[in-house]
Amino acid sequence: MSIVLMGCVIILRLGHRKERDKRITTHAALVARAFGAKKMVLCGEEDESIIESVRKIVERWGGDFEIEYCKNYLAFLKEFSGLKVHLTMYGIDFREKISEIQNTLKEKDILVIVGAEKVPGEIYEIADLNLAVTHQPHSEVAALAVFLYELFGRKFPEKFENAKIEVVPCVRGKKVKKV
Amino acid sequence: MSIVLMGCVIILRLGHRKERDKRITTHAALVARAFGAKKMVLCGEEDESIIESVRKIVERWGGDFEIEYCKNYLAFLKEFSGLKVHLTMYGIDFREKISEIQNTLKEKDILVIVGAEKVPGEIYEIADLNLAVTHQPHSEVAALAVFLYELFGRKFPEKFENAKIEVVPCVRGKKVKKV
Repeated sequence: MSIVLMGCVIILRLGHRKERDKRITTHAALVARAFGAKKMVLCGEEDESIIESVRKIVERWGGDFEIEYCKNYLAFLKEFSGLKVHLTMYGIDFREKISEIQNTLKEKDILVIVGAEKVPGEIYEIADLNLAVTHQPHSEVAALAVFLYELFGRKFPEKFENAKIEVVPCVRGKKVKKV
Repeated sequence: MSIVLMGCVIILRLGHRKERDKRITTHAALVARAFGAKKMVLCGEEDESIIESVRKIVERWGGDFEIEYCKNYLAFLKEFSGLKVHLTMYGIDFREKISEIQNTLKEKDILVIVGAEKVPGEIYEIADLNLAVTHQPHSEVAALAVFLYELFGRKFPEKFENAKIEVVPCVRGKKVKKV
């Protein structure tokens, strides 16, 4: 059964630090795209290089994933009218809420908030849901991946429109083709 | 139904670069632990700081997860007698092989190989399976998380022995308790 989703998934990356988080934030953006989210909003230190490198990947590998910088995350959160989900190891097990969130996605947008090391206390209040992917310390990249994987019913996007290249899955070796 | 596993899951992290990969490799190690693997073997540049920081997390949050450095990954791979799974976006969909790997894990160890940017071509030959978690560029941390999540039947380890602290899951805020 295929469900028409009216909403889309947006990632809010909080507290990015240009030096320390460059690769983790890039990985989070690429996971967002590969697992079916539509956009990442980057907060914290402004970082043109991440925005550019993610856009280059989109240009090459396709799809309509967007990434943009936002100076004022509180203003953004105030404006956002969908469901706000904050991923944190201190929250409740994400699987308790996944079908509720899937239902919400049929009608409105979902914002998935992922922080860097220190998340301001107010985020726990502003979020509609504080959800944990395990209660152990690990990685916001992994938490985001597993959360999106379950949210989209363990399916990955099949087609990325306007891709210039595509992987040809192989038992051994690396193969890509132009499309 | 609970299955007794005779084998355990070990992660082989290839090509670690001290400056560039410090945080990504740490995240991969913490994901390995939180999602049920027993050990990470770190190859590439020697990096005492990662080994120490992961061991500190284990001391505090419990469990028997190990991490150690190995200079010669080819010798390690030759010695390893279990099933060698290489995670790569160029491989075949991991879900085609997951139940086969689950069955193998009842009897022997599984080695999950995750590379940094460039993986030597020989790895594709040495690996028993080259498996992709999506065929899009994203993150070895995310690939490892989703692979382990499915491998362990979408269950996380429930108890980490000898933990000093534990999260108390909360609807709002952060709560930990001493154990």
